Amino acid sequence: MPGYRGIMTPDLPPTALPLSTTERTRLHRLRERGRTERAELYAVLDAGLICHLGVIVDGSPVVLPTGYGRAGDSLYLHGSSANRALLAADCQQICVTVTHLDGLVCARSVFHHSMNYRSAMIFGAARMLFDDSERLAALRAVTEQLVPGRWDHVRGPTRKELAATAVLELPLAEASVKVRTGPPKDDPEDYDTGIWAGVLPARLTFGAAEPDPALPSGVNVPDHIRALAGHPRGA
Amino acid sequence: MPGYRGIMTPDLPPTALPLSTTERTRLHRLRERGRTERAELYAVLDAGLICHLGVIVDGSPVVLPTGYGRAGDSLYLHGSSANRALLAADCQQICVTVTHLDGLVCARSVFHHSMNYRSAMIFGAARMLFDDSERLAALRAVTEQLVPGRWDHVRGPTRKELAATAVLELPLAEASVKVRTGPPKDDPEDYDTGIWAGVLPARLTFGAAEPDPALPSGVNVPDHIRALAGHPRGA
Repeated sequence: MPGYRGIMTPDLPPTALPLSTTERTRLHRLRERGRTERAELYAVLDAGLICHLGVIVDGSPVVLPTGYGRAGDSLYLHGSSANRALLAADCQQICVTVTHLDGLVCARSVFHHSMNYRSAMIFGAARMLFDDSERLAALRAVTEQLVPGRWDHVRGPTRKELAATAVLELPLAEASVKVRTGPPKDDPEDYDTGIWAGVLPARLTFGAAEPDPALPSGVNVPDHIRALAGHPRGA
Repeated sequence: MPGYRGIMTPDLPPTALPLSTTERTRLHRLRERGRTERAELYAVLDAGLICHLGVIVDGSPVVLPTGYGRAGDSLYLHGSSANRALLAADCQQICVTVTHLDGLVCARSVFHHSMNYRSAMIFGAARMLFDDSERLAALRAVTEQLVPGRWDHVRGPTRKELAATAVLELPLAEASVKVRTGPPKDDPEDYDTGIWAGVLPARLTFGAAEPDPALPSGVNVPDHIRALAGHPRGA
């Protein structure tokens, strides 16, 4: 396995370490979009809700959308203990990608159309967690990624529920981060064509909270839900 | 290659054909979330802007976020002709996933937290396009997916730009569609705990158009941009 081992260096805080130094995380093209700070990886991951997990199942790639959580330099994925893609990921090389679409970049030529985005791509071997305290900490990270403050507000997992849940850990040791911002970049001769060019900004936005119809009257929307409702996410 | 061959039946319109009958698109769990109408696959794809392409590069999965387009029963991907992941996808089994996050499902227990979403997963062998009329039609589909009406408004690709662009076609012959909607489903004994439960709806929304600072004064925002600005996408 190609690997970045600097993460094991005990003297440096993780944020001082480079993201990765391996070949597959080196950007070959559009290098100006690459980011190398570990804090930028954290920022992209912490702003997201869904990742896309790539895993090889029966010799073919499968790309599974799923929730995730981050704690320190680990990413956590969870799902049913019967989920074939999750099971196939254990001890295998996987790729997890988190992408935020920030805008449509409308250029004067078809060729220079693009998107503004932030994306993180993490490579590595996933590890299935079996220790219950590790698993609980990981599930807490996954739940808090979805709705900060939720874990302490709801009923925790029973032993039976824990047994039905597979939890994977992926170290954030080998990753690349790409970001595109700003207006289109057109060819010089296209600038005076009178064609409109610019950016259509996009963001994921939460609407008003929709209470479960089965909720008894008098149960108010808690603060941790109110803090998200009506606001953009991933910004 | 496992394959669904009914797509070749000339007597049936594509929308009358089932999505797929292969093992890897059969849902093993949560079958009630599965959709089997071809029209539902089209709806999920047509509402999207970014897909996640899974391809095996040097033996490991890579998950690449990228734009795409659909025309009939084909999905089109494009990128730089130097893009390693795109080149690796030619004549190989790939997986393309499109996901819309529609809401955070907040249950009374950690275990039953979920997301409302629509997702499509397409499997198959990609084919690099070399015929220029096929490539132009595919690039038109990709551009129109981004901003409907844009292709006829801007400068088309030059021969040099076409040569710098790799275009892949993936048949929509083997796909699965999953959709979750509605409130959380909790265990019976949790309903009277007084814990707030419900859905926090989410959608991607475009803001006001941001003109390129290099745009001469007097170039107005065209109708095809105005039609998107300030509105949700993927609904």
